[in-house]
This record gives sequence, structure tokens and C-alpha cells, in this order.
Amino acid sequence: MPLPGLLEAVGRYEHALITNDVPELDVLFASGSTTIRSDGGTTLVGHDHIATFRAQRPPVPRRTLVRVHVRGLAPEHAVVVAESERADGGTGVQTQVWSRTEGAWAVTTAHVSTVPPAVPVPATGIPGDTGTHPEHPEPPTDRTVWRVTAEDAAADGTPLPAPPAGSTGPLAGARVAVKDLFAVAGQRVGAGNPAWLAQAPVETASAAAVDALLAAGATLAGIAQTDELAFSLAGTNVHYGTPPNPAAPGRITGGSTSGPSAAVAAGVADVALGTDTGGSVRVPASYCGLFGLRTTHGAVSRDGLVGLASSFDTVGVLTRTPELLTAAAGALLPAQDVVRTTRIVVSPLLMDLADDDVRLAVEAALCALALRTGVPVETVDALTAAGLEEWFEAFRTVQQAEAWAEHRAFVAVHGESLDPAVAARFRAGERIDSAQEAGARAVLAGARTTLVGLLPPGTVLALPSSSTPALRRDADAAEVDAARAGTLRLTCVAGAGGLPALSVPTGRVGTLPVGLCLAAGPGQDRSLLALLGQTPGPAAPLSSLSPLSSVPAPAPAPEALA
Amino acid sequence: MPLPGLLEAVGRYEHALITNDVPELDVLFASGSTTIRSDGGTTLVGHDHIATFRAQRPPVPRRTLVRVHVRGLAPEHAVVVAESERADGGTGVQTQVWSRTEGAWAVTTAHVSTVPPAVPVPATGIPGDTGTHPEHPEPPTDRTVWRVTAEDAAADGTPLPAPPAGSTGPLAGARVAVKDLFAVAGQRVGAGNPAWLAQAPVETASAAAVDALLAAGATLAGIAQTDELAFSLAGTNVHYGTPPNPAAPGRITGGSTSGPSAAVAAGVADVALGTDTGGSVRVPASYCGLFGLRTTHGAVSRDGLVGLASSFDTVGVLTRTPELLTAAAGALLPAQDVVRTTRIVVSPLLMDLADDDVRLAVEAALCALALRTGVPVETVDALTAAGLEEWFEAFRTVQQAEAWAEHRAFVAVHGESLDPAVAARFRAGERIDSAQEAGARAVLAGARTTLVGLLPPGTVLALPSSSTPALRRDADAAEVDAARAGTLRLTCVAGAGGLPALSVPTGRVGTLPVGLCLAAGPGQDRSLLALLGQTPGPAAPLSSLSPLSSVPAPAPAPEALA
Repeated sequence: MPLPGLLEAVGRYEHALITNDVPELDVLFASGSTTIRSDGGTTLVGHDHIATFRAQRPPVPRRTLVRVHVRGLAPEHAVVVAESERADGGTGVQTQVWSRTEGAWAVTTAHVSTVPPAVPVPATGIPGDTGTHPEHPEPPTDRTVWRVTAEDAAADGTPLPAPPAGSTGPLAGARVAVKDLFAVAGQRVGAGNPAWLAQAPVETASAAAVDALLAAGATLAGIAQTDELAFSLAGTNVHYGTPPNPAAPGRITGGSTSGPSAAVAAGVADVALGTDTGGSVRVPASYCGLFGLRTTHGAVSRDGLVGLASSFDTVGVLTRTPELLTAAAGALLPAQDVVRTTRIVVSPLLMDLADDDVRLAVEAALCALALRTGVPVETVDALTAAGLEEWFEAFRTVQQAEAWAEHRAFVAVHGESLDPAVAARFRAGERIDSAQEAGARAVLAGARTTLVGLLPPGTVLALPSSSTPALRRDADAAEVDAARAGTLRLTCVAGAGGLPALSVPTGRVGTLPVGLCLAAGPGQDRSLLALLGQTPGPAAPLSSLSPLSSVPAPAPAPEALA
Repeated sequence: MPLPGLLEAVGRYEHALITNDVPELDVLFASGSTTIRSDGGTTLVGHDHIATFRAQRPPVPRRTLVRVHVRGLAPEHAVVVAESERADGGTGVQTQVWSRTEGAWAVTTAHVSTVPPAVPVPATGIPGDTGTHPEHPEPPTDRTVWRVTAEDAAADGTPLPAPPAGSTGPLAGARVAVKDLFAVAGQRVGAGNPAWLAQAPVETASAAAVDALLAAGATLAGIAQTDELAFSLAGTNVHYGTPPNPAAPGRITGGSTSGPSAAVAAGVADVALGTDTGGSVRVPASYCGLFGLRTTHGAVSRDGLVGLASSFDTVGVLTRTPELLTAAAGALLPAQDVVRTTRIVVSPLLMDLADDDVRLAVEAALCALALRTGVPVETVDALTAAGLEEWFEAFRTVQQAEAWAEHRAFVAVHGESLDPAVAARFRAGERIDSAQEAGARAVLAGARTTLVGLLPPGTVLALPSSSTPALRRDADAAEVDAARAGTLRLTCVAGAGGLPALSVPTGRVGTLPVGLCLAAGPGQDRSLLALLGQTPGPAAPLSSLSPLSSVPAPAPAPEALA
């Protein structure tokens, strides 16, 4: 259901609220005696009573829209539910019925609630961390999360490398959980498999990414678990167990950057240093409610890293706050031009790969992003179902072929020690012939051309970070396979294009987090990060915003994304 | 806009909520993934997530609907905003968007807020008084409220009459503010005029109504001010000043039972003993947010009372709670059959006499009453504009003629001391000839026949208690006259019919109280009071409930009440 002009009006309202523009707010509340505004304590009826109240109250505290749900009821009526967060950790929800009279949208019913911050937790001093992160009842120091903690290493007489003494770099005070694929000087790399660990040499130097974070002032909290050889998106490990997901009790963290993500989500580390080949940063970011960045392929050095599939392997980071994500990624990335985002595109095909619930959550997160940044959202039909399936098959073919090439020697000797599902992926790589691989590489080259053309600097593609929220720890194989199939078709897009991709943790399915993924053209990592802090320009083209989901319950209409 | 079945569904929802009937609630929330429910802290999207939440939470605390605002958006979509109060003084608001699919209404968006009780005030021990009444910052002990307080009288050596020693009657502990028209043994009657007071004898016995309250265990807090000779609805007095309205700072209390109402609203008395000729209980009840009962004409003894117009004069009481109103009225009234109310009728003509804001507030209060009692509301067209105007003129003619006859001797001598507006009303009575008066009495006899026919036992007429909320203390004469004209046309209906009329303080215009008036056939006082506590019967005919106001903003449509 098209609702032309609705989001422009919502954007004007939000701007007027934040700037305490009382006359504008009065215009955006429907005139007449039947308009209703409620908060917890008082219900006011009639435009003029509401205006009198508004003129007398202090300006509302500054806040950030995190999810905006739009539901069209009829061509002239829609419901907008906006969830927001305040700087102090408090939250708010406003439910508004908007009606259009003579072409102009105005609020006819509004209901506002705010909730003060939860029990305050001392701030850590980390940029952007107000100390309100969830505290895990039992800090995960166990082996499902950590292979080696800083305390373990010190006790063994091989303390982990430290930042320069007295560092005041941008990551000073931030504790890093390093995925057990990166070399850490004085330690072995375990790669999620005890046989790998047993044969690994003690590293004489740290990986380039580890050194870059140390140089920026970070400390190492420890070396954290990974899915076996990083060849999984689940966050399970048959040898070390399944780390807890503090954001979704009883659920998996996603992987393969599982241990670092669990540590950051629990607040016992601040930065997760991970890798993303087919989604290994974006999926745990989505499942654990973290900000996560997969960097442009090739932009960050992979020196000192156990690889999986070199055409797709990238370094990535996860944090609880966008500010720290920007600081951590900034320490890793090369210099890049930062371009203001002026256009967000969505592909209905990609959105529909997610579960219905996830699609709606991601649309709500995206709508909030559009409103708070002033960037219009447009639907594009650059992809076809058949084309996407071809990309996915090509991605998988090359990934499996490269993984087999990378690890065939290890698998030949230690294959029996592997999780059967992981072993099967390696074996599938063994069966790919060179003609198949060449064909797949040709498809990927075409995909990259399409995606680079679709995403010039200033344009961002929005899609779900995963097709489902975190699965239950006891999910059966069929459920795991279905989630993996949907998610890989989403994550392979950035893989195929070598694109940077940012997962923003503002979706909610029930109480479970789910990420909004924002991908940009290669080399646009810093532009993507800048979008998180972007505010509407003086001439923000809000008029071209269009609601993504405006379907009346119960049945989503096919044109919901039109 | 007719919304058939909507209120039935809302009634089912409310019943299911109170009984924690989770399966029924699940049916009444729209199926599908787009349904939204928010409270202060969490927004859940999708029927099943909402159902999971609901199944896990404890039952909601018992609550009472006080206002239910209904707004039709389109034939299949409506907004319902329900305000409720909990037994502990906490309040709640739920805003729901209801949509109809295949004939069945279901909630597609809901937003719920609750607020705990305000600063607790020690309960007084008065039935139904939880101690949360507004506390006036400066308890009104001044002469605008009281002519003689119990403390004044005791200090003068003429203590006010007391209840029987050790009384455990239904009013034990309740403090009564007696309007200065009732005889109180040992005191003079002042009638709101110093010249009247100066010539008044010291009473040797109390009025029958005062004695009845004392016999039920009440104590007398004092003799409180009245508008001059009770011939005003304003609550102003040129000699003693204008008492404050604790429920509406800066506004008048309404009159003529002004001082007693101010005392009860401020919490320094619990029962106001007043009189109602043309609205003198119902209007201050409406303006001050009190429960008020005008009794059936002739049902309660007027012995010991300074009268105004004997064809209409009645005794009445005002309280902060319905329980105490029932107890106080019960001490005054004769035995009566109590009949369950099965039908509430509204006259669009009467509703339209009120300001738009008041009409909407009264409709919201009435909708809540209908939902919590299970009594259907029907529109009737028993009255015509011309007929009502004729009733009003007849009422005014007889009132003025009788008032002149009652007080001509006093006015002849002391007329110069009277407020000019009050004096003018007496002088108008002087000019009425016997033919005019006889004609008016014939019209009133017809009115009474019509009203008694319209209101058999079990049927109640709902209308606004006043046409406006309390006016500002500095309102100009034109504003006062306009409010008086509208209000008198409403209040004269019960006057003409000799009907009991109950004002329920559940309307709100902005933050100002306004009363819903419920009138019944003569002798149905106790049935009216019973309606306040009535709950839906096992076979409540909720299906015949119809929304009263279902107009989309901004312009109320003429058929709004249809």
C-alpha cells in the first residue's frame, strides 16, 4: 500500500520534536477536537489541549530512533510505532495513528511511553559505552568462550602482547577478544580444533591486525574460540562446546567468530577481532546484538591469519557501540575517502530471503535509520531469483574449492577429528573440478561488476544480516540447515562483491536481536561507518522516503516492499 | 461511522484481560507477523511473539475502565484508547488499533502504559477512599470555603452537633461540610448573604438531612459557603469571595454548593451536603471532579432548609468516591427497590448542548461505563430542539416565579446587597404573571410525563453534567452567560422531571474534570447508585453496544452520535 508523503511527515515530526519546534508539532497533530495524545499518566483529547500541554513542557531529551514500524491501514490511515533510545540508556516508544486529510498527513492518535535506564552498570571508559550493556550472570571465562585468557597466559609465564606503555591511542582501555585464527606472539593458533593446536608452532610475531589494535592502545583480553577452521556459521564447536549468547539466553551465538562475540556481548571484552568469509562477523553480530563490520576484501592485512577461502576471507570487528566499532575499524583500515550516503537501496528479493519476522524487524531498523540520517530508501530490482541462486552457487563452489586447497593436508590427516558437517564441506571442495571452479569465478566476476555498478560511492544496499535470529542451542539439523541456506544467500552478496558490510543490531524478533546489514562498494568501509552518525542535511530529500512495510495484518501483500 | 461489533470485541477483550483468559486474548490480537504490541520497555512484533509474552506474564492487576475513546478511521479500522484506574490508585492507558477481517475485529497495534500511584497520602478510613485524593497546598480554611468551621464553633462555645457517642454507623469517620442553607442546631443560617445571616435566628434544631447524616455516624466539619441564596451555578459570592477549585486551579468550583464542594475536593471534608434546584450539586460535581447525587424531588426531607424554588429544590450530596456517595445518600434516602440497569439512552440533542470537548469526554466516560457494567447504550430521539427549549423556558419561568415568592420580602429590603446578577433573577420572577406561570407548569407536567415514560425502572439517561468544564475565575460575563445557558438546558431536564441525577467525575477536558450525568425515573436513586458498581451479567448483551463517537479527525460528522 503506497503511503506517499507519510515518512516525510514522520521525519518532519521527529525533527520538530528534537528541536522543540512547537508550531511545527502543532501542525503535525491533526486539528480538531478528536485528536488524542496519551502518555503514562495523562490522556489529552483535542488538538488545542495537546498544544497547550506541549507549549508548557520542557523540550524532550535527545533521542535516537532505533526501529520505526509502519503499517498502512487504508490509503488515508497508517500506524507508525517508533522505538527510540536516549543517551542515558533510557528507552521510549511512540505509537501514532497518522491520517491524511486533503493531502496532508497528521497525527490523529498518539501514545508515548518512556522507560528510564535499567540498573546502571559502571561505564567502562570505552567510547560510546554508557555502561548499560547486559551483564552476564556468570562471566564466561570457560573454555566455550576462551581458549587462552590474558590471565591464563600470564600464569603460564607467556603474557599476551601489550600496547605501548602509556598509550593514549583511540583504543586505550578497550579489551580485545582475538579469534583463535590470528597469530598472537608467544601463543599457538588453535583454529577451533585440538589437532590443529597440537601441531601449531608458538608464534614469534602477532598477526598484522592484532598489532594494529595494540598500536592503537587496545589490550588483549584473550584468545577466544572459533568454529572449527572457521567453516561454519553456527557458533558450535564439537571439541570446546557452544558458547552462551548473553543477548539470547538458550541460543547459539552464531559463528564462526563465536567466542569473541560471546565475550563482547557479555561485557567481558569490548572488541571482537574476527574474520568473515561467508558471514562469520555479520552472523554473530546479528545473533548477539552487536555492531559488526566485515571489511572490504583485501583492505585489511591477513598476515598471520589462518585462512579459509582467500577470495573471500576478510578481517572484521564486533563491538557493543558504533563509536568503538569506528575506532577499532579505523585502526585496521587504510585511509579511504569518506563519502556521505545519499541513497539506500533495498532488493525485495533479498528481503524475502529472511523469515517474515526478520524482514519486518529489518525494515523497522532501516526505516529508523532513514529517518535519523535523512537518507531516502529506494527499492531496486537489480537482482533476480535465478541470478542470486547462480551467485550463491558460484560463491559456494569457489569457497569450497579454496577451502579444500587451503586445508587438504590437514583434513587428509585429521579429517576424522572434524565435526562431520565441517568435514563434509571440505569433502565437497575436493569434488569440484577446475572447469566448475573457472565457471564459478566467471559468475563471481559478473556479480562483482553488477554490485560495483549498483553501489557507487554514496549508495548503500540494505538487507538482513541473517535470515533468522539466533537458533536455539537444541535446534535440529533441518532447522540449522534451513537457517544456514537462507543466511548464506544473504551473506554471499558481500562475499561475491568483496564488499564491506556493516551489521547494525537494531532489529528485534520477539526479544531476540537481529541485524540490519548495510553493504557498500569496495573501499567504502569508512563511509559505511560514517552513515551510522549521519544526520539529515539542510536539504534532506525526505520526500522520497517510502514506507517499506505498509501491509495491514494479517497477510503481507506481495507489494509490501513496493 | 457505524462500527458494528467493535465495542462487543472491546468488551470481550477487557473481560479476557481481567480474567487472564489467554486463549481469548490470543484470538483478539490479529494473527500474522505484522501485529505490534508495545509497553514502556518492549515492543513485540508478530502475533506469536505477543502470545508467548502473554502466556509467561502474571495476570494484570484488577482495574476499572474510566474513559474509553473510540475513533473510527475507516469501516474496517478504528482506534480505541482506554484509560483505567487500579484499586491502588495507579493508572493505565491502552491505545489499540482494531481492524476487521472477515467480519471479526482484532487488535493490530497495541500500546500499553501504566503509572504507579502518585505520592501516597494516608487513607482516611472513609469507605473507598484510598488516600490518593488531591491535597490542596493550602487547606481551604478561609472564608471563601467555610462560614463556620467546627473549630470556630467550639471556640465560640457553641460546638456543632455530634454523632451519637461511639457510633459505628456507615458514615462513622466521615466529615461533612454542610451548605449554609441547612439549619445546624446552635448556629444561624447564612444563605451566602451577610444581611440574611444578621437577621437569622439561632437554630434550635438541625435540618432533617443534617440529623440523618449525624445519625449514620458522620461528624460535622463545618458550615460551608453557598452562592447567594443558592440562585447561581457559578460558585462565586460577592460577599465572601470565590472558593478555590483544587481539581482545577485558577477555576471556579461551580455552585451553588460551592464551599462544601471545595472542601471535599481539597480533602478537608469527605461529604458535601448540598442542594440542587437547577444543577447546584451536579455542576460543582462536574467542575470539581466529584461524585454528586441530586435526589428525586421530594424523596429527601427539606425540613430546616432555606428553599429557592419548591417545585425543584432537592437535597444532594457530593463525595470523592462512589462508595461514600452510596453510604451518604443511603442515610438520606427512603427505602427504594433497586433495579438492575439494562439500558442507557442518550439524546444527541442533549449531547450537542455541550462543548465539543465536553461531549467527547462524556462519551468516553459513558463508553467506559457501558463496558464495565455491560449495559448497552442506545441513541433515542425522544426530544426535539424546540421541545427542549420549551422545557427550559418553563423550568426557568416556574423557578423564577417560585424564587420571587419565596424571597420577595428579603429582596424588597436587602435587594441592594445582592450580586446584581442574582438580583436580576429575582426581579425576573417578579414580572411573571399567573397565566405565564400556569402555562409553564402545564409544559412541565408534559415534560414529566415524557421523561417518566422514557425512563422506566432499569433505563438511565446519560448526558453531560455541564456544558463546559470549570470556567476560569476571571472569565468575562459573556463566557459565564454562555456556559450557564448551555448548562441550564442540560440540568433542567432532571429539574423538569423531578428526576434523580448522578454526576460521575470520569470525563476530562484537557486536565479539567467534567461529569457524566446519569438520570433515572423518579424514585430510582438507589438503582442509579447501584449502577456504579454493576458488573456485566452472564449474558450481557454487549453486542448491542455501539460506539458513540467514531468520527475521524478533524471535523466531527453530523452522524457522530448515530
